Amino acid sequence: MTPVEAFQPPSRLLLGPGPSMAAPSVLEAMAKPLLGHLDPAFVGMMEEIKTMLRAVFQTENRMTFPVSGTGSAGMEFCCVNLIEPGDEVVIGVNGVFGGRMADVAARCGAKVTRVEAEWGRIIEPGQIATALAGIKKPKLVAVVHAETSTGALTPIPEISRLARDAGALMLIDTVTSLGGCPVELDAWGIDAVYSGTQKCLSAPPGLSPVSLSDRALEVATHRTHKVQSWYLDVNLLASYWGAERVYHHTAPISMNYALHEGLRLVLEEGLEARFARHERNYLALKNGLETLGLEIASQPGHQLWQLNSVTVPEGVDEAAVRARLLADFGIEIGAGLGPLKGKVWRIGLMGESSSADNVEIVLNALGQILSENTN
Amino acid sequence: MTPVEAFQPPSRLLLGPGPSMAAPSVLEAMAKPLLGHLDPAFVGMMEEIKTMLRAVFQTENRMTFPVSGTGSAGMEFCCVNLIEPGDEVVIGVNGVFGGRMADVAARCGAKVTRVEAEWGRIIEPGQIATALAGIKKPKLVAVVHAETSTGALTPIPEISRLARDAGALMLIDTVTSLGGCPVELDAWGIDAVYSGTQKCLSAPPGLSPVSLSDRALEVATHRTHKVQSWYLDVNLLASYWGAERVYHHTAPISMNYALHEGLRLVLEEGLEARFARHERNYLALKNGLETLGLEIASQPGHQLWQLNSVTVPEGVDEAAVRARLLADFGIEIGAGLGPLKGKVWRIGLMGESSSADNVEIVLNALGQILSENTN
Repeated sequence: MTPVEAFQPPSRLLLGPGPSMAAPSVLEAMAKPLLGHLDPAFVGMMEEIKTMLRAVFQTENRMTFPVSGTGSAGMEFCCVNLIEPGDEVVIGVNGVFGGRMADVAARCGAKVTRVEAEWGRIIEPGQIATALAGIKKPKLVAVVHAETSTGALTPIPEISRLARDAGALMLIDTVTSLGGCPVELDAWGIDAVYSGTQKCLSAPPGLSPVSLSDRALEVATHRTHKVQSWYLDVNLLASYWGAERVYHHTAPISMNYALHEGLRLVLEEGLEARFARHERNYLALKNGLETLGLEIASQPGHQLWQLNSVTVPEGVDEAAVRARLLADFGIEIGAGLGPLKGKVWRIGLMGESSSADNVEIVLNALGQILSENTN
Repeated sequence: MTPVEAFQPPSRLLLGPGPSMAAPSVLEAMAKPLLGHLDPAFVGMMEEIKTMLRAVFQTENRMTFPVSGTGSAGMEFCCVNLIEPGDEVVIGVNGVFGGRMADVAARCGAKVTRVEAEWGRIIEPGQIATALAGIKKPKLVAVVHAETSTGALTPIPEISRLARDAGALMLIDTVTSLGGCPVELDAWGIDAVYSGTQKCLSAPPGLSPVSLSDRALEVATHRTHKVQSWYLDVNLLASYWGAERVYHHTAPISMNYALHEGLRLVLEEGLEARFARHERNYLALKNGLETLGLEIASQPGHQLWQLNSVTVPEGVDEAAVRARLLADFGIEIGAGLGPLKGKVWRIGLMGESSSADNVEIVLNALGQILSENTN
């Protein structure tokens, strides 16, 4: 074959649904020399990752660590460990990721009750209550906290209470929320959670931070059937991430360096300050969009700070605007998915990407393109 | 919590079972700015990865790409896509990874026939033939090409022929072999294969290159049951890695940069030259070990060039020697696993780690420690 040139990525400002910009020191961490996955120095760093993850998830759960795959692997981790064939599960579906969870749960043999909401709207506690009322022995209730496909933020505490009252475990998807807005596992009574590194944690994609409560761990370690995934079996992973340090798989060393540095930056900034920054830049974006005659499509009062679905004005070619932004301004924003395809743009302001400068840059570029369009 | 310091890995010479040393330009690639996973520039790079992987695997298989997890995720990818509940599979078990495959296959609902060999020895074609003779409709034969836990290299062509004659698919594990010794998928008639980035491809751990023949793909796309893993379902992954570019999961961007650069270096050196280098350094190590009164434990005539199980001399504390090597010389070598625990050291000479200098360094260090031991 003809020789391939070394790859040099073009410069992009990543303001889509993720990956978002990685912090410079995180990228530097990725290039550090490798260690063995059982090296005492690496093991020490793993412990720090676990401690920092607990702080960011606001939990005491000892089973808190990064799964060696992307956010969807974390979703699968939670499902394969907690669900057994025939289990009744209730899943909120108000976007791509709720639908994905329903698919994953069904592949684990669950009987899935889908609780649907229009894309862009939240899952209401009343809907969950109604679904639970019709089920004898629900095993699990699962909801996406921050729906990346729509920009809606579903409040969790009341839904979690309903799940617990019904004797079910509570699972939430925090891929886009973690590190950008409050996620309080213990205060909310969450039993299982997964997230991703490439959104508000400002690291590249490749790991999925997860956490299981002791109650969830009890379920996962006392199953009737073996966990259908060897790679994601918490009974095996616990021996590597726990005190025994038994070899399971070869941990992605460099990605763990990156997560370590990303978490360090989150805690250095402070959770409250970080959330405030995300809110501030969301508000600035929202105001600027209004000035351009644009509006955020997701449910008022429940809009994500990190990810904004923006309604495409009538007569404007959605894909052409995105293509212009990328080609002429080096800015990536996201397309709509599913029923929102062609109807919204998705502008992400997550982690490192959430800055006043970036808000101004994307508003200026959008304004310029749209004004040319109407001329 | 108390602030955590930025992590600075100590300097190590990685001569264990992997990860091995990453090439300097691969580490640099890891630090390059991120791109979106649907960015045209990233998509172009994905195509180059596929093309280079085909060259390294020596195959025309269109379904050749990296799974977003480590080698064990690649193993699971092959099993979940090809095995349906009740399928008869024959698996060679002569070390950790054959045993792991048997476990993974059983979790897919397979009826597993284990073909066992003593750890350190190869799987003989005659053993596979005997096993196949007793099975009406075998679906799959699986063998570990290079057993990382023992250092034995099982010849594949005859076993593959037996599988095909029996109407079964042939699956091989090339985690440690790929890029260090010949792996010829098409010439050998292989239907499914997985590997890892952190051995002879000189990249960090985190991706698992896989390839499926058209015959295997036909099986995977015409299943009775849905693939039990959503994350690893080739029917979904094909839409992202194929022409449609439909979003599945967020690809680990930086790890793909690393794999791209690692593959580029393999092809720049040339497969034949690279294999010759691995053989040469294996021979130098073997000679040097003999001078020290040490010998390679795996079956003569079938010893891996990349990974050497070295018999621990009587009276020598296996773990203490490894600890000294790490603490005083900064050299990592591996411990024995399973029945070989405490009985062997594992010295890896893979990819970037396979050099004449490294052979000399590890021999000198070992020699020094052992001579102190006997004084």
